[in-house]
Formats: sequence, C-alpha cells, structure tokens
Amino acid sequence: MEQEFASTLLENAVRELSRLPGIGRKTALRLALHLLRKDEAEAVALGQSLIDLRTGITYCRSCHNISETEICPVCASTGRDRATICVVENVRDVMSVERTGQYHGLYHVLGGIISPMDGIGPEMLEIDSLIERVGKEEIREVILALGATMEGDTTNFYIYRKLSEFPDLRVTQLARGMSVGNDLEYTDEITLGRSLLQRTLFSDSFGK
Amino acid sequence: MEQEFASTLLENAVRELSRLPGIGRKTALRLALHLLRKDEAEAVALGQSLIDLRTGITYCRSCHNISETEICPVCASTGRDRATICVVENVRDVMSVERTGQYHGLYHVLGGIISPMDGIGPEMLEIDSLIERVGKEEIREVILALGATMEGDTTNFYIYRKLSEFPDLRVTQLARGMSVGNDLEYTDEITLGRSLLQRTLFSDSFGK
Repeated sequence: MEQEFASTLLENAVRELSRLPGIGRKTALRLALHLLRKDEAEAVALGQSLIDLRTGITYCRSCHNISETEICPVCASTGRDRATICVVENVRDVMSVERTGQYHGLYHVLGGIISPMDGIGPEMLEIDSLIERVGKEEIREVILALGATMEGDTTNFYIYRKLSEFPDLRVTQLARGMSVGNDLEYTDEITLGRSLLQRTLFSDSFGK
Repeated sequence: MEQEFASTLLENAVRELSRLPGIGRKTALRLALHLLRKDEAEAVALGQSLIDLRTGITYCRSCHNISETEICPVCASTGRDRATICVVENVRDVMSVERTGQYHGLYHVLGGIISPMDGIGPEMLEIDSLIERVGKEEIREVILALGATMEGDTTNFYIYRKLSEFPDLRVTQLARGMSVGNDLEYTDEITLGRSLLQRTLFSDSFGK
C-alpha cells in the first residue's frame, strides 16, 4: 500500500476529523473505524448534521447569540424581561446562564473578552453594539456576567465606563463568593476575603 | 429557551457527535461550537467525508479488509507475495503490519478474536473463509499475527488445529520477546522467560 491507509475515503475522514481540537490522528482513526462498524444511517446523520450546523446557523443581529433566524428566539420572545441585558463572553455562557433557570431577560454576546496578551482589543468585540442597544432600547439594567478573571474584570470595567453615559442605567455584576457546597479550607483566600466583605444578611437566604 | 440549546441544528449536531465513543455531550458541544467558528468549507468537508466514508467503503471479498472495491488493492496487487497470508484481528492491525514495511504478502482479517467472555465464538469470525482460501489458493505460509493475549493464543490454536489438514502448510506466529528499547528490569518475567527459551543466534542479528 502506497498510502498510510487502504482507502482514500478513510484517509479523508481521518484527516478531517483530526482537524478538530483535541482529536489527533489516532483518535480520528478510532472514530472513523467506529463509524464503519455502525449503521450507514448513523454515519450519514452525523455527517449531515455537521453540514447543516455550519450552513444553517447564523448569529442574531441583536444579541449576537447563535440563531437559525435573523433575530434569535430570546430576542424575539415577548415572555422575557426586555429591560435587562446580560452581557456574556460567548455562546456557551448563554447556555450556562439559561441552565440556571434564574434569568429571564435578554443577552448580549461579546464574542470574546479584552485580552492584550492575545491581541484582542475592545474594538474587536460587540461592545459598540451593546452601547447602541442600551441607547435605543428601553434598558434599565445591564448585568456584566463575565468570568472572574483579570481579563473579565478589565472588560467589565471598560464596559462599565462606556455605560456611564446613561445615568439611569443600573450596571451590576455577578456575585463573587464561595461556591455552593465548598468548605472554607478549599476556598482561596481572595475569594474568602471578598465573601467576608460582601457578606449578605442571613435572613435573605430563606423566604424572600 | 425551551430546549437546552438555542438551535435544533446545534442540538442535532451535539447529539450525533456524542454518539461517538469517548465523546460526551460537553466535548460534542465544544466540537460543534468550534465548527461554527471555522470556515463553512471546513465543516462541510468534515461532514461529507464522514458520509462518503460510510457509503463508499466496503469489505474486500477475499481478505475482509476495508476496501473501496470488491477486491482490495493488496489482494489485487501482482507485486505482493501471494503464497503468504498474515492473519490479523482487525483492520487496524493490517495498518500496523503495513507500517513496519517488513511484510509483502496477503492478509486475512478475522473481524475479532475468540472470546467466550464476550460471547464471540469461532463461527462469528472469518475463520472458515480462511480455511477455504488456503484450500483454493497456492498458500505456503500462514502467519498468525494476533495479540499476545489469552484470547489471541486461543484463536491462534483454534486456527492452527483447523489448518493441520494441510500437511505442507507452514503455520507461524509472531515472535514473542523483549520490546526493542526495553531494559530487562522493565520486562515481565513471562516475556523474559520466553525470550530466554527462544533465544536466537547473535550472528543472525546483523548481516545474515
């Protein structure tokens, strides 16, 4: 055999699979051989779903979350609180917030966070479009829901400064504190320190 | 959002990807979102390659290796030693042997090994077709190249017994011994014992 594999079809599939992050040639070969053992319908469904995914999904013109329509179901919904925008880094974070079941407002997906180390400046993110939305729509609160990292804090602060032109707007950020279920000894001292400073009334933790 | 993801296309892709072995829903989501960030052509190439793989590949009628044609390139080749068959467990093992560059004969892929624990009996493997090939073709040697495991040894012995009806046939198996590059202290005592019993002439290791 001149090529590494007996078949160019197998070679193609392995090459394409191994382009995926975290999948090397060995894993790609294992996956391809697995598909060969399965029903034809299953392999075709997988292949077609990936084609449909990339060709059918676009980004919401308003919040920049992924969407199959120009305006995503959240932005189009009449059942959600249209006066609150939750600002997140990426599409995955929208899913994380949705899964909590605690949020019923709109979103704004930045598409990244400010990171000079990675050469990502504010002009590369959907920050201007956020300011524009707040100016045009009837927004009363913007929740900054970025990660508790230096880049997240920098981005939060940058957006906060930009939003200061709206005097009546409430700008909030996610609470920082101990993770639910964690012991004190496993909580780092910075988080524990913040949890002390930002302690909440015990009576607020029940009832309400 | 009623469903977990904002999009049924994303949902479909994640569901199909997570059917693959070793890929859970979190990894599937990461892969799907990766594809969304890439060029459309790349995602389409991946999807199409998986469809082509499963619809275009069949198994060689003679050796049961994967093939795009009824008879695989190895079996159809005039440049290979057609008097020797190397018996392997699966398609991946054919690739392993080919990569050594030391083998120029034909193959026979069993499609598994005898394993009562997994309910795999000899009748479920391509053993009868091997005996048939040896009876019909001009085969002088069968190399049993199964793994050095209990199941491999059992299968080797079963095939060896079946092949004893051909008195002039040479039946060999892969040498068992120390791995190249290994120290004695890291070689298990059974392997080391066999290496002692089956020691070879030093002068055979160079020139010849």
